Amino acid sequence: MTEHSLWRFSRAFHRAINERRPEDLEALIDDDVDWTIYGPIDMFPFLGARRGKAAVLEVCRQIADNVRILRHDRETVMLGVDSAATMLRYSLTALDTNKPISLRLAHFAQFKAGRLLNIRIILDTFDLVEQALGRPIHLPKFASTF
Amino acid sequence: MTEHSLWRFSRAFHRAINERRPEDLEALIDDDVDWTIYGPIDMFPFLGARRGKAAVLEVCRQIADNVRILRHDRETVMLGVDSAATMLRYSLTALDTNKPISLRLAHFAQFKAGRLLNIRIILDTFDLVEQALGRPIHLPKFASTF
Repeated sequence: MTEHSLWRFSRAFHRAINERRPEDLEALIDDDVDWTIYGPIDMFPFLGARRGKAAVLEVCRQIADNVRILRHDRETVMLGVDSAATMLRYSLTALDTNKPISLRLAHFAQFKAGRLLNIRIILDTFDLVEQALGRPIHLPKFASTF
Repeated sequence: MTEHSLWRFSRAFHRAINERRPEDLEALIDDDVDWTIYGPIDMFPFLGARRGKAAVLEVCRQIADNVRILRHDRETVMLGVDSAATMLRYSLTALDTNKPISLRLAHFAQFKAGRLLNIRIILDTFDLVEQALGRPIHLPKFASTF
């Protein structure tokens, strides 16, 4: 049984971020990859949509410029033949402030011939913004029905 | 081939929210269910963690008090025997203001004997907060490395 593409991609991604070695990652990304991390791009320019291998490698470089991964825990993993859905928690360090950031995210990925073809990542962005600001944002209550 | 528990649960959930008929949902929830929607509970008290059938039915009632589902589109679905991971887009109406809210979310669910045992939902909460406020929140740029 061959290893699922997710594990190889995941190792290469972490190496690209933490060791700034994107070479392994490059071989695991389809030329026509479709990549989206949903979130506020005004604050975090490395979120948002990217198309094509060069743009994805560049955004991985930008992520590596901004955070270091201390730890990741996979809470749920579902694997298909060429697909994967995962919920994980990341413990990160923001490089410019040295602040810890804790993040839970879900990603849905599709692979083709062992290379990443499509990935969509959703995260609890409000929590991320508050951690990056280092202070809570005051919010009114949404509803009056409680 | 029997229908996957996800579809039955999904229909009953939408009926509970839009028609305020929780009876069908009640039969599809395990007594010991573990339920979490990650997000800012100060603004949205119906987010957060709930444990047990009564608490989950109550939170569904609170969601039904606050929003109506206009439309949902499943973008990705992965099914296991007793599990499911889905990425969807919801078009909602906020009932107190009549404002439209568009929401993308990921959920990971486990079922036992056809009943929901565990669900974790992640959403792009910053986008949700801005839509509920009806105005953008000004954010500083996270990094200076671009």
